[in-house]
Amino acid sequence: MKLLRVGPAGAERPALLDADGTLRDLSVLVDDIDGVLLADAAALGRVRAAAEAGELPALDAAGLRVGPPVGRIGKVVCIGLNYHDHARETGAEPPAEPVIFFKAADTVVGPNDTVLVPRGSTKTDWEVELAVVVGRTARYLESAEEGLAHVAGYAVAHDVSEREFQIERGGTWDKGKNCETFNPLGPWLVTADEVPDPQRLSLRLWVNGELRQDGTTAEQIFPVGEVVRYVSHFMTLYPGDVINTGTPAGVAMGHPDPKPYLRAGDVVELEVEGLGRQRQELKDA
Amino acid sequence: MKLLRVGPAGAERPALLDADGTLRDLSVLVDDIDGVLLADAAALGRVRAAAEAGELPALDAAGLRVGPPVGRIGKVVCIGLNYHDHARETGAEPPAEPVIFFKAADTVVGPNDTVLVPRGSTKTDWEVELAVVVGRTARYLESAEEGLAHVAGYAVAHDVSEREFQIERGGTWDKGKNCETFNPLGPWLVTADEVPDPQRLSLRLWVNGELRQDGTTAEQIFPVGEVVRYVSHFMTLYPGDVINTGTPAGVAMGHPDPKPYLRAGDVVELEVEGLGRQRQELKDA
Repeated sequence: MKLLRVGPAGAERPALLDADGTLRDLSVLVDDIDGVLLADAAALGRVRAAAEAGELPALDAAGLRVGPPVGRIGKVVCIGLNYHDHARETGAEPPAEPVIFFKAADTVVGPNDTVLVPRGSTKTDWEVELAVVVGRTARYLESAEEGLAHVAGYAVAHDVSEREFQIERGGTWDKGKNCETFNPLGPWLVTADEVPDPQRLSLRLWVNGELRQDGTTAEQIFPVGEVVRYVSHFMTLYPGDVINTGTPAGVAMGHPDPKPYLRAGDVVELEVEGLGRQRQELKDA
Repeated sequence: MKLLRVGPAGAERPALLDADGTLRDLSVLVDDIDGVLLADAAALGRVRAAAEAGELPALDAAGLRVGPPVGRIGKVVCIGLNYHDHARETGAEPPAEPVIFFKAADTVVGPNDTVLVPRGSTKTDWEVELAVVVGRTARYLESAEEGLAHVAGYAVAHDVSEREFQIERGGTWDKGKNCETFNPLGPWLVTADEVPDPQRLSLRLWVNGELRQDGTTAEQIFPVGEVVRYVSHFMTLYPGDVINTGTPAGVAMGHPDPKPYLRAGDVVELEVEGLGRQRQELKDA
């Protein structure tokens, strides 16, 4: 299923994009698309049955904003340097074990919402990523298979990053990862049953129409199931938590000088195979 | 005012500790102690007026668990190496600007709840801290005075830390800061009007009755108002967000070998002047 949330920011309603591409109202069946729903197999089964039976009312998509596909996100765990090609372009050794950093859930916006260049920023950068949405509480998992079994679904994430704040201002990467609007998510949460192999997805990102990232999750150093297993040994993952699993090569930081960092007026488009497409215009904060 | 939340985990009710030390029920007036309440000066005024008029019903404190004093916390921003004496003991230079890292809100537990030593951990460490609770949305603040004006109140925080996960496992400090139960908070949220100078508070921590940390917020490299101002340039702070402002000297990591890291069965007690006291027993996860 392709689940999404549509409407004004903070007041989104749950919806479903059916096999014909028609937007369907889910608010007749569920309150929201959130950790509570994702952990409830019976409720998800009712959604699926209603969709297949054609019982969900159509929604007029015209002019409707698409929000992030998950509400009440608890935390956004991010994996750094998780693609062989991206590690090479940053001059970093491939990490021996996954690199973890955080984005606050309040950085998450809709897939086509405006992204704000922070005040004082000269190094705002892009990163297309495969996001994993957790469906079951995960603690001390023992295998990558178990890790995959805790995934509710997948979405496109834009892990917007300010490189000066991230790297040159002391402390951890979090300083350059948590600016307002820095995590567009969506358009859809595609349930895991429709993504048979998360390690065979292409990812692409364009800036002002120019292709800048063109990668594949086959390049991930730590695949999705292993990431979930690993993270679950350092923290508990809850339904509705999100994991951004890293970005392939092609970010601005990896270019020779002058690096093509983002500025107000730029337009970024990105997609992950089968998970839909985002488009953001940059503005000054 | 001393605001708190009492009852079973996940089902706490709002309460107030009055000037006589009597626990009063706030659920007649407000739904919860959270960002919504803290941003609502009129509602806080009604709570204060009812408390002063003696209109709040007494609650029987016997056997009642104390939860974290703030519900629906959005994010927990942490400041690292923010005390001159702690920077010295870790061998680090005092940072030129604040070091930021994150704890997920789901690590927050009550002040006397069990703290779990993570599986595989040999370096679980303690850190008594002054926590700041944000009362107003803060973006790009211009002065430390403005920073202080965005503080709703203060609480004791225990920034439990696993040093091997934090420092020796690659990536950022977040890996050792986000284990389950790693952020006891409370017992009270003491409103800012009752803390005239947050830079003159003593902080103490005992392990199994032995005094291990005995510091003062006068040693903070970046005082509270400056921390709030600084952080607001890298992310937006929302009502109900928490900032852990760093720990003074005396952590296990600062000891000569063999360092006295925490184990199951240990008891940690900690307090910040005027903000109350915590007591946790350590158990294995």
